Amino acid sequence: MPSDFLPSLGQGRPYLAIPGPSVVPDRVLNAMHSPAPNIYEGALPQMMPDLLRDLRAAACTRQHVAIYISNGHGAWEAALANICAPGDRVLSLVTGRFGTGWAEMARALGVNLQTLDFGRSAPLDPQQVEDTLRADPERKIRAVLATHVDTASTVRNDIPALRAAIDAAGHPALLLVDAIASLGCEELRMDAWGVDIVVAASQKGLMTPPGLSFLWVSDKARTAADTRSGPRSPYWNWTPRIDAQAFYQYFGGTAPTHHLLGLRAALDMLIHEEGLETAWIRHARLARAVWAAADAWGADNGDLRLNIARRDARSHAVTSMRLTAPDATRLRQWTETQAGVTLGIGLGMADPTDPAWHGYFRLAHMGHVNAHMALGALGVIDTGLKALSIPHGPGALDAATQALLSP
Amino acid sequence: MPSDFLPSLGQGRPYLAIPGPSVVPDRVLNAMHSPAPNIYEGALPQMMPDLLRDLRAAACTRQHVAIYISNGHGAWEAALANICAPGDRVLSLVTGRFGTGWAEMARALGVNLQTLDFGRSAPLDPQQVEDTLRADPERKIRAVLATHVDTASTVRNDIPALRAAIDAAGHPALLLVDAIASLGCEELRMDAWGVDIVVAASQKGLMTPPGLSFLWVSDKARTAADTRSGPRSPYWNWTPRIDAQAFYQYFGGTAPTHHLLGLRAALDMLIHEEGLETAWIRHARLARAVWAAADAWGADNGDLRLNIARRDARSHAVTSMRLTAPDATRLRQWTETQAGVTLGIGLGMADPTDPAWHGYFRLAHMGHVNAHMALGALGVIDTGLKALSIPHGPGALDAATQALLSP
Amino acid sequence: MPSDFLPSLGQGRPYLAIPGPSVVPDRVLNAMHSPAPNIYEGALPQMMPDLLRDLRAAACTRQHVAIYISNGHGAWEAALANICAPGDRVLSLVTGRFGTGWAEMARALGVNLQTLDFGRSAPLDPQQVEDTLRADPERKIRAVLATHVDTASTVRNDIPALRAAIDAAGHPALLLVDAIASLGCEELRMDAWGVDIVVAASQKGLMTPPGLSFLWVSDKARTAADTRSGPRSPYWNWTPRIDAQAFYQYFGGTAPTHHLLGLRAALDMLIHEEGLETAWIRHARLARAVWAAADAWGADNGDLRLNIARRDARSHAVTSMRLTAPDATRLRQWTETQAGVTLGIGLGMADPTDPAWHGYFRLAHMGHVNAHMALGALGVIDTGLKALSIPHGPGALDAATQALLSP
Amino acid sequence: MPSDFLPSLGQGRPYLAIPGPSVVPDRVLNAMHSPAPNIYEGALPQMMPDLLRDLRAAACTRQHVAIYISNGHGAWEAALANICAPGDRVLSLVTGRFGTGWAEMARALGVNLQTLDFGRSAPLDPQQVEDTLRADPERKIRAVLATHVDTASTVRNDIPALRAAIDAAGHPALLLVDAIASLGCEELRMDAWGVDIVVAASQKGLMTPPGLSFLWVSDKARTAADTRSGPRSPYWNWTPRIDAQAFYQYFGGTAPTHHLLGLRAALDMLIHEEGLETAWIRHARLARAVWAAADAWGADNGDLRLNIARRDARSHAVTSMRLTAPDATRLRQWTETQAGVTLGIGLGMADPTDPAWHGYFRLAHMGHVNAHMALGALGVIDTGLKALSIPHGPGALDAATQALLSP
Repeated sequence: MPSDFLPSLGQGRPYLAIPGPSVVPDRVLNAMHSPAPNIYEGALPQMMPDLLRDLRAAACTRQHVAIYISNGHGAWEAALANICAPGDRVLSLVTGRFGTGWAEMARALGVNLQTLDFGRSAPLDPQQVEDTLRADPERKIRAVLATHVDTASTVRNDIPALRAAIDAAGHPALLLVDAIASLGCEELRMDAWGVDIVVAASQKGLMTPPGLSFLWVSDKARTAADTRSGPRSPYWNWTPRIDAQAFYQYFGGTAPTHHLLGLRAALDMLIHEEGLETAWIRHARLARAVWAAADAWGADNGDLRLNIARRDARSHAVTSMRLTAPDATRLRQWTETQAGVTLGIGLGMADPTDPAWHGYFRLAHMGHVNAHMALGALGVIDTGLKALSIPHGPGALDAATQALLSP
Repeated sequence: MPSDFLPSLGQGRPYLAIPGPSVVPDRVLNAMHSPAPNIYEGALPQMMPDLLRDLRAAACTRQHVAIYISNGHGAWEAALANICAPGDRVLSLVTGRFGTGWAEMARALGVNLQTLDFGRSAPLDPQQVEDTLRADPERKIRAVLATHVDTASTVRNDIPALRAAIDAAGHPALLLVDAIASLGCEELRMDAWGVDIVVAASQKGLMTPPGLSFLWVSDKARTAADTRSGPRSPYWNWTPRIDAQAFYQYFGGTAPTHHLLGLRAALDMLIHEEGLETAWIRHARLARAVWAAADAWGADNGDLRLNIARRDARSHAVTSMRLTAPDATRLRQWTETQAGVTLGIGLGMADPTDPAWHGYFRLAHMGHVNAHMALGALGVIDTGLKALSIPHGPGALDAATQALLSP
Repeated sequence: MPSDFLPSLGQGRPYLAIPGPSVVPDRVLNAMHSPAPNIYEGALPQMMPDLLRDLRAAACTRQHVAIYISNGHGAWEAALANICAPGDRVLSLVTGRFGTGWAEMARALGVNLQTLDFGRSAPLDPQQVEDTLRADPERKIRAVLATHVDTASTVRNDIPALRAAIDAAGHPALLLVDAIASLGCEELRMDAWGVDIVVAASQKGLMTPPGLSFLWVSDKARTAADTRSGPRSPYWNWTPRIDAQAFYQYFGGTAPTHHLLGLRAALDMLIHEEGLETAWIRHARLARAVWAAADAWGADNGDLRLNIARRDARSHAVTSMRLTAPDATRLRQWTETQAGVTLGIGLGMADPTDPAWHGYFRLAHMGHVNAHMALGALGVIDTGLKALSIPHGPGALDAATQALLSP
Repeated sequence: MPSDFLPSLGQGRPYLAIPGPSVVPDRVLNAMHSPAPNIYEGALPQMMPDLLRDLRAAACTRQHVAIYISNGHGAWEAALANICAPGDRVLSLVTGRFGTGWAEMARALGVNLQTLDFGRSAPLDPQQVEDTLRADPERKIRAVLATHVDTASTVRNDIPALRAAIDAAGHPALLLVDAIASLGCEELRMDAWGVDIVVAASQKGLMTPPGLSFLWVSDKARTAADTRSGPRSPYWNWTPRIDAQAFYQYFGGTAPTHHLLGLRAALDMLIHEEGLETAWIRHARLARAVWAAADAWGADNGDLRLNIARRDARSHAVTSMRLTAPDATRLRQWTETQAGVTLGIGLGMADPTDPAWHGYFRLAHMGHVNAHMALGALGVIDTGLKALSIPHGPGALDAATQALLSP
């Protein structure tokens, strides 16, 4: 069907379905639309105890939290800078481009890097981790770096199983988990799961514009940091941030005033109104609807495939999909210009200069996303597949609404 | 399927799908988020010539436009107050509750009212109008009142055919058209169609919060107003508003500062960016998608019915639907609390105290609505029908995406 | 001092010191920055009882209030339309251009108008009113129209004294008071003062953008309305608005959604946080500071004069001042372009085409105005007088800060 | 005069006169009130070339600029981390608490720190710097750290004289200048003055909320960085930020979406509308008005003193003042609660636990500040001095308006 003679159906509220920044709730934007507040006295400094309590709740921990003005990459560096000196060894578990990125950052910091790469379409294998740690009798590996959900591959790794593997090996390495794409979206229980450092940022499940990041830190990690050799970056040093006596110390200087106002509103919504566990269930249900649609599109000689075949290893927050190149790019362009939906590009699956790059796209369903938004995105993809005559199986939307209701 | 044990999927941007106020674009809200502007000099007074030009463009007229600070009911009264004195006769054509409302207003103003009522599910019949006008040899009927789209019944009347009927009767009555629900959404050509007064308001196709209304006025109507007997309300009197020399005269007093800023942004989008005719096509396509879904839901012993059976008499801006009472109310409550979509109540089809009232609902697709929003709403309705086990036929969403693409 | 070679000092938050629209608080703008709300159910309809309670509190009445989507001119017409039919007689007391305006509106409505004009620089004389009413033995005068504060002349009339004059004459006429410029700014006690209709609008002491107006109505006025002859305008008819059973009835149609959200925030500030009587004291103190500065500028052969010589007849909300023409216009242009303050033009003191027109300006100190804003405006005027070498006495700002502190 | 029985005059737009965060223009807040934008394609990535051009213009350089998501402290660390490895030597010139802070940060990074401390009330002495550099025949000092304006002491250092001193000593050390409090407010010409690294942040002269910081980098500094030993922090490493090929590289990861939108609006105002040099003149004139008021308050046995006696060493952006303790704290509390102005606390002049701490306060006049705002703040301070019976000389405001007009 020649769609090009039809004018766009895109006039309306654009829907950004890329995996971060996610949709910022109107309440968060409104909270940020504020005159500059006083940073010395009054409401802003006074909000910190409750804010920290709610941040801890978001990671299911009673331990420590440090706030950074930075993006997630900054928090990656902060985690490493506090516990590793140049020459220290870490084990990096790679299941996507963001795992690679964190490892590269460690290397640039002078860390002695050991990597297990599990590809771009599969979760980490705890047995290999256990074997690797057993092969480190001198316990030189100071930390294990894992990605909970890799935003690029959209794989979700089994952190409790990873913890069990480390324990089985009897290895003292710290467990560092990048939860940038999962925190607030899917089950993550820092204390119960024995995670030592959780890394996250504001712009995904926390529904606040990019610019803040967070480390949740175990007592064990703090102890390790205090025994680290060499000078520690004052900006990344979590000690004054965790033990702040004055307001500016939480931020190592001037507070991120407007982000704090936005984050406060977002945590009210996530922790106090919807409830964290309810949000996890919501994301799980939305994800199942997306998968059901994808399965239908892929049936009957349809081209579409989910990047992660294993159902229990798929993220609930974002889904990477594959078409025959260049149909993913054609589809993305159609949905953005004709129907009001911006899909995410494929990331880390092929080089952007490689024609195969145009075979991947991602649909985010993280953060401030309800049934209306998710079903609308699926509806638009379905329309785009038809408009562009991309081979796809029928009944995807019906499958999605059915899946949305399964408990 | 018992849905009550499932937590809500509503956390996300709520989607208000009632037929006015419609979704206000972020740009319009941003434009209104402005310090109070100077009303004596500067940008605000200077915007008037372009604003009036674009308002005229919105009704496809080169004649006159008057702006009122009021809702649509105010504009109804303004139209009548300018051309009718107590005792004058008008012919009211009723095809839904809003037709009734305008007629009641005329009666309250002391106008001698003659009514043709075409029910709640059918358009007006031009032949009956012609016959009625022929039966007025003294030409006492000063005006014919018609509703282009009745927001309650969601019928669309054929205004060119109505004009032809008046002409066939050789009757000089003015043709007044309530386009509150249609202007900016569907084809309306004041000059080409020979309409004398078009009535509209800000909160539907013009995408601006309620509080402004408009009359587009023909030369013939102005002449009629000038020959009207008795005192004319200074607030409704369109003469100083149309012929304003000073800024305040456009508004009969203090200007509606923030609404003007919002309206300016909305007209930029509608007239200068999307284009009025393109917007009409968009609404037509969205409407066809809604009808296709409704037809599917109603097939195979499904309960759902469109209120307007005649396809060419259905509004492109809003669709009234019927289920077995109280399923419409159950559905509305489910979509609002579980999925983020607020549907419109049925209006004027039954008394709110009558159990049958709970059998009607309306889905708006007017104004700032793209494929994502409309398909999301249909997806949510589909999910709600399943969740509540309301009998419905299959394949509605597939039919909708298919229909969206038909030219 | 040649100021023209100096670049502007105006870059910063502009301060609009015209007498309406007044400065809109950030909280009010933020409240209005909201997606379109549901007008059938939920928070918006539910806010009405509290909103009406607080509106009544703002006029110190336990009687009735009607809300109109209109500007103040609309409310003028509403007041007249409810109690007067064409041919009825009213007595209009004119102390400035807005008094004239209301009278002209009455005449346009066909009302038989009798006027007492007290000039542009003095308050009304209760004795003359009493005499006039005594000279109406048939009690044909149905209403007395008074302006509490005339925004143009900035005179404040003594309403209790006016009430006493009416009572002294034993005349049953209704007392209508235009409090558009005073409500929320200076003492106004509808019930205690025996006022029958108070007229006000959103954009001055109520700190909300123009677009809403209000009538507070006594039982006596309602009775008078019910005995009025002829058809009553359905839009202005206060009965369904006062006795509304359904949400839309409060507004005679679609609700002014965003204005209601803004007004709610403004009333929270005025009634519940600052307190109405505290706001009156604030305005009184700010006014005294302005007068003290003006007296100083006018001393020592200074040119500046207050339009209202009698201290007890000056508004606390806005002050009209006079310079030798064209210095007022020069000063206004300087403050706006060089220093960030927009002063009000003189209104009603001379025709805009008359060179004398350029000798008047007004400084508003109404609504959301604190010591910082008022003193900044005085400081800028002082600077402008110096920059433009307009003759003025010294020490104005010192006098102002001193006066601000006098109880 | 007992002011306590008077209700507050603070209801109105609060004015935050602390030296950062400064007042955020409404346009900047509006620009930030935006849905999350696409970070992969479209308007946001495309804005970078112009944004960088305008950032370079703000520092009067044609060399390089790197953007960091961090506060100013982060940028301090970034500057050091790029050019110094642990063990390298720097010379720190301290003229206030922020000078101390940067030095402490260098020490924490393992840098070998040499300090010249010039106290808290005087600028640096170029001769001492020259002497110190001459006493480093091996040229081990890698960099000289200077503060252009110390936000705490409000001293302004003479950077061209410092450059001349370094040149006179024939020393190759890099010149690093902290311009956090001065950039956009007072003359700063990176290239003409021979500065190697300028450090600034978003929340002062750049009128954007805290959360972004900037390094402007000379070719010489880049060369020095490339010869630095040891691993360089990937987050602070300016190379990929300066030489970015992809959008995310400018920010070392996810872009600070909303801050970029805000900064764009702020640079439009500063660079393209007002003009940088005009802004400098505005700040100079506002500062002279503040000083004139302070001199008057200090005359005639008044208590008030400027912290920086030397007129040519005073900042144009912020002014530290002294009263007899605890009058500064009393004054700050009065202006905030009674008059709507929040003054800055004294910083670094005494320990907060020392009673003397209550003798200092600061008045900012940086960024989005016009004559109205500055004169209003002075008016409020004048009123507060009177209300609290703090000894002060007369005529301060008259002196201020006079000074404002001197070229």
